Amino acid sequence: MDESLLPFFRPAGIVVVGASTSASKLGYGIARNLTTSGYAGAIHFVSQGAGELFGRTIHTRLARVPDPVDLAVLVIPAHSMPAGIRDCAARGIRAAIIISAGFREAGTEGAALEETCRELARATGLRLLGPNCIGIIDTHLPLDTSFLQPPMPPRGGIAFISHSGAFCAAIVDWSRRQGFGFSQIVSLGNQVDVSEVEVLSAVAEDRHTRVIVLYMEGVSDGVRFVRAAREVSRAKPIVAIKVGRSESGQRAASSHTAAMAGSDLAFDAAFARCGIMRAATTEQLFDWARALEDSPLPAGPRVAVLTNAGGPGVIAADALETQGMRLAALDDSTRRLLTARLPAAASVDNPVDMLASASPEDYASCLDALLKDTGVDAALVILPPPPMHSAESVAAAIIPIIRVSSKPAVVALLGSDLTEAAFEAFCAAHVPTYPFPERAATALAALFRRATYLGALSQETAGRPFDVVAPASDSTAELMAAYGIHVIGLRLATSPQEAATISRELGFPLVMKIASPAILHKSDVGGILLDVKDAESAASGYTHLLEAALAARPDAHLDGVHLQRQITGGQEVILGALRDPQFGALVMFGSGGVEAEALKDVAFALAPIDAAEADDLMRRTWAGRRLDGFRGIAPVDKSAARDALMRLSWLAFEHPEIDQVEINPLRVLPAGAFALDVRRSP
Amino acid sequence: MDESLLPFFRPAGIVVVGASTSASKLGYGIARNLTTSGYAGAIHFVSQGAGELFGRTIHTRLARVPDPVDLAVLVIPAHSMPAGIRDCAARGIRAAIIISAGFREAGTEGAALEETCRELARATGLRLLGPNCIGIIDTHLPLDTSFLQPPMPPRGGIAFISHSGAFCAAIVDWSRRQGFGFSQIVSLGNQVDVSEVEVLSAVAEDRHTRVIVLYMEGVSDGVRFVRAAREVSRAKPIVAIKVGRSESGQRAASSHTAAMAGSDLAFDAAFARCGIMRAATTEQLFDWARALEDSPLPAGPRVAVLTNAGGPGVIAADALETQGMRLAALDDSTRRLLTARLPAAASVDNPVDMLASASPEDYASCLDALLKDTGVDAALVILPPPPMHSAESVAAAIIPIIRVSSKPAVVALLGSDLTEAAFEAFCAAHVPTYPFPERAATALAALFRRATYLGALSQETAGRPFDVVAPASDSTAELMAAYGIHVIGLRLATSPQEAATISRELGFPLVMKIASPAILHKSDVGGILLDVKDAESAASGYTHLLEAALAARPDAHLDGVHLQRQITGGQEVILGALRDPQFGALVMFGSGGVEAEALKDVAFALAPIDAAEADDLMRRTWAGRRLDGFRGIAPVDKSAARDALMRLSWLAFEHPEIDQVEINPLRVLPAGAFALDVRRSP
Repeated sequence: MDESLLPFFRPAGIVVVGASTSASKLGYGIARNLTTSGYAGAIHFVSQGAGELFGRTIHTRLARVPDPVDLAVLVIPAHSMPAGIRDCAARGIRAAIIISAGFREAGTEGAALEETCRELARATGLRLLGPNCIGIIDTHLPLDTSFLQPPMPPRGGIAFISHSGAFCAAIVDWSRRQGFGFSQIVSLGNQVDVSEVEVLSAVAEDRHTRVIVLYMEGVSDGVRFVRAAREVSRAKPIVAIKVGRSESGQRAASSHTAAMAGSDLAFDAAFARCGIMRAATTEQLFDWARALEDSPLPAGPRVAVLTNAGGPGVIAADALETQGMRLAALDDSTRRLLTARLPAAASVDNPVDMLASASPEDYASCLDALLKDTGVDAALVILPPPPMHSAESVAAAIIPIIRVSSKPAVVALLGSDLTEAAFEAFCAAHVPTYPFPERAATALAALFRRATYLGALSQETAGRPFDVVAPASDSTAELMAAYGIHVIGLRLATSPQEAATISRELGFPLVMKIASPAILHKSDVGGILLDVKDAESAASGYTHLLEAALAARPDAHLDGVHLQRQITGGQEVILGALRDPQFGALVMFGSGGVEAEALKDVAFALAPIDAAEADDLMRRTWAGRRLDGFRGIAPVDKSAARDALMRLSWLAFEHPEIDQVEINPLRVLPAGAFALDVRRSP
Repeated sequence: MDESLLPFFRPAGIVVVGASTSASKLGYGIARNLTTSGYAGAIHFVSQGAGELFGRTIHTRLARVPDPVDLAVLVIPAHSMPAGIRDCAARGIRAAIIISAGFREAGTEGAALEETCRELARATGLRLLGPNCIGIIDTHLPLDTSFLQPPMPPRGGIAFISHSGAFCAAIVDWSRRQGFGFSQIVSLGNQVDVSEVEVLSAVAEDRHTRVIVLYMEGVSDGVRFVRAAREVSRAKPIVAIKVGRSESGQRAASSHTAAMAGSDLAFDAAFARCGIMRAATTEQLFDWARALEDSPLPAGPRVAVLTNAGGPGVIAADALETQGMRLAALDDSTRRLLTARLPAAASVDNPVDMLASASPEDYASCLDALLKDTGVDAALVILPPPPMHSAESVAAAIIPIIRVSSKPAVVALLGSDLTEAAFEAFCAAHVPTYPFPERAATALAALFRRATYLGALSQETAGRPFDVVAPASDSTAELMAAYGIHVIGLRLATSPQEAATISRELGFPLVMKIASPAILHKSDVGGILLDVKDAESAASGYTHLLEAALAARPDAHLDGVHLQRQITGGQEVILGALRDPQFGALVMFGSGGVEAEALKDVAFALAPIDAAEADDLMRRTWAGRRLDGFRGIAPVDKSAARDALMRLSWLAFEHPEIDQVEINPLRVLPAGAFALDVRRSP
């Protein structure tokens, strides 16, 4: 992490400025938490009135605080903050957490105050976290600069970074009975200085952190964020909820925080690029995180479901399929093992239903057989309170099997009173455990997506996979040519002779169209000739088109005739690129025309993309899947479409001055793909 | 309810056959629960060994059990069941619950045994629930014939009917800490006699039941089920999870129970028809149920969100919009009230963010203002642990406001230790409370869907809204004509004269096509004439088409020439109807051709449908929405398409002998809609 952030995460001494002896004040809560957290460094208090607090002297001036002190927690009124920052800098403090509210979120006056604080931070080199935040909790160090009700959240491997302090507080309280714990919690507040980008990288370095959870309301610098997150997510999974998804959500986000909500599509594309797994709900956020924290990753999507009851087994099968997973086909040897073990009425098909009589030993031996089956990538164990046994005896029997397996196994533990002891045993053993089969299935799917991302990462090609010849000019045609995108150009002829000459250069058959800005609907005036097969026809066609146009529109100015190589057959798709203000160039693939708009058959990715990402965009759209052929629709040259898409993404990436560029249509033939029309702005 | 089911729900005396003094046996658990449940009627035990159990004599023969006794709980080995049933009938018992397993689910032998039981039930008139079930729990009567661990689930207004006994058991245990209770729980088992249809109607009559939750693996009689559920859901909401949604789920369902999983599309259509709200997950099932149990219904989709923290407010806004709800635009007078009450930095836009300082009084007075706003249909209150107040003081302040309002308000209570007392207060006051804003939003959306269903019900037209003239024959053309569907017929001419005559009858312009079974691609042989404008052209066209066909295919047999009125312009859609083996006729609307298949732009409903349902099918598809016009696509006569769809649904409904009928395409013009091709089987 950046050296300047070290005092936030490894402070040698901390001073609470605005500490209070009044139990109803935040400055009291912070002093209390810091003292009781077990923090091993120096702790100092500063307040207007002298005295003692938690066995320590209260200093009335920051200048009097003795060494060591490198981190300040500021909980003084907003209007005193500039002075407070100056005092910190004067005392040689390197970092400060501003807990106090009353800044940008409170209106224009607060915003001005916040700007003053930012300038002071720049001028003094003091790093600032907040304002309007609840600080930092590190359960392992330990350290707690928050005012939240003790005790600290349980220790664990999940780091939580949040733009919302209230959400932090709620999650900390909610998490107490959930069976997972936190490594670090960082509340970002208004991000006057330190933003989610720097904190993400810093938190990732913590050796206790195994997965990172983000609550995001926006992004401070999209490009830096993607770079940092991409680096982090190679080593540690990141799960995020990005709010402001909906129109009204975006309105709400912009009214309550100054963070830009940004385009949701761009966030999807950015998250996909850097391997951030975007959760749809808060519950999913932590369902995924706890699986990612503890489980090995599956090599594939084939899941074995083990149950003692049919109903929940079917629920699991449904949910797995909805999530893109598959029920594994069990090997004959596995089925023989299961058959030998289980009563005749049991089902040794997947889901394996051992029946209600299943003993802990049945659970263990069947799970062992399933996890050893080479056709099984993961297991989902369903455990309703067994009628004849205790759930915790089943937990005790299967935990060792799960711990030694290199394949992930998650548990759907259905119940409450009867399953409480089992729940605790599973949590203690770091077995991801969920109250319903659906949530367990979602967690397995998250593990599989993580595995897929890491697999794709290893295949990734670095840099632009093709050469670009410097274009002779900035014209769209030159630029497309430089990036190797085949555009079927329009050439203007101004005489029959020139039409003949150009026609020979272009090759046949040709389309010829009257060229006149005044004539929009060319076919209405007989202004289009198809299937022009030789130079003679081109010359006579020129004359014919001009005569027809003159007859229909005697007043129109005619530039001449456009010639274009005629390309028929194949399929049409649309390729595009546009610039997102936060994340830069996005590339788009989909169906052209009205259908694209109405059916939203388009997919986006952050540019540039490689072949695998281009394939993914095509897989996600009907326009792309159709290229492989479908019923009466013949297959076409998908690799040519992939190539054009990849090249366009590099063009957009390397030309930030272009705001939008669209190839509509790209005609994909049995061999080759050709841009028939290219528009760009500016 | 059917008289014969009364002993299940209001037994005068119960005998447990197979009662046991051994605590590890199911027969012990049942005897224990029955005794401790508080059941007020007579309780008897029968077992092979005499003795005493829970202070009652154990009889060794059923015949010796004294009056009153009208319900038996059979927990004897499967092979003894036929004898047990005979004994019950001989003793004058009218109903029996078979707890024991070992029947259809255990293989062919068990299936034969089950068939014997069914025949015995029919022969003796004894009603049977089960086998392979956990019986009936009624918390209000009270009554508990299950062997589940005591105590009984908490009392409440949710009735739960389940095809899976294990799922029942798991839900009962899970529910203990969820803040809602059950009125009745009925486990259906293998449904040898009594099925979900009869139980649904019976349970609905219970005055304590306010909402019914179904766990379904299939349906025993689709048509009866729809009729019963439609009747029930007028008065009490029904929420269902139907498993076997996915392919592998369906496989799993059919391997573990003999219930037909049925087509999932047909279930969707059937549920929609009878107002059953289909939950996607188990969690959703009960999230919806607890809202439907306690809340008034919203008059519209406009929701006010009240929060003390921005983040969860944005999450709620996102989730509401995803669920088809809207953020209400607040009235100026409401905003003035909020402004007067709240600090300047608070947001009086919806979501209303009162800031972390919000007091219980702030919550109460703002919620009151929001619920009184005529532009607000419902409220979602977000309550993370307030930093300065206790969550339970907020609960105490807002519960009275919620109780007196005629609009629904749900609470997202974020936390655990700090919110426990508030949770209990909300539950006691029957305020639907959820741990996350997303789940609260889903519950509000469920309330709105219920309101919408009831609203549509009141608009419903009874019976066929048009007359059908008895068709002269069974031909497709006659049938379509009888139902008032305009088919552009094909007429065969076998001479130029006949072509001229027919052309005059049909009107102009016409299409003429060579009629020959041997010539599939008519245009390849010049076998199509468009734009035939008068009778003379029709006559000469006849000759021309025959000559062209003969020239191209001298060997082909030619029937003559087909004439059809030429209809161009407008839009094409597909209408269809097919027979589901469980639910009967389904009607379909969507995009025709390959697109329909690839993009699944089709929607289904149970036939017959009225105008509102036809509109709904059109609204759910791009093919239908497009009829209103879109960008360059001109609007067409949507009411003609609606009418054709409605008429086709009645045709399919009233002609069960027709397996499939498809109009592809129906051409919808600016005025009118015409079937250009109709296929049917048989």
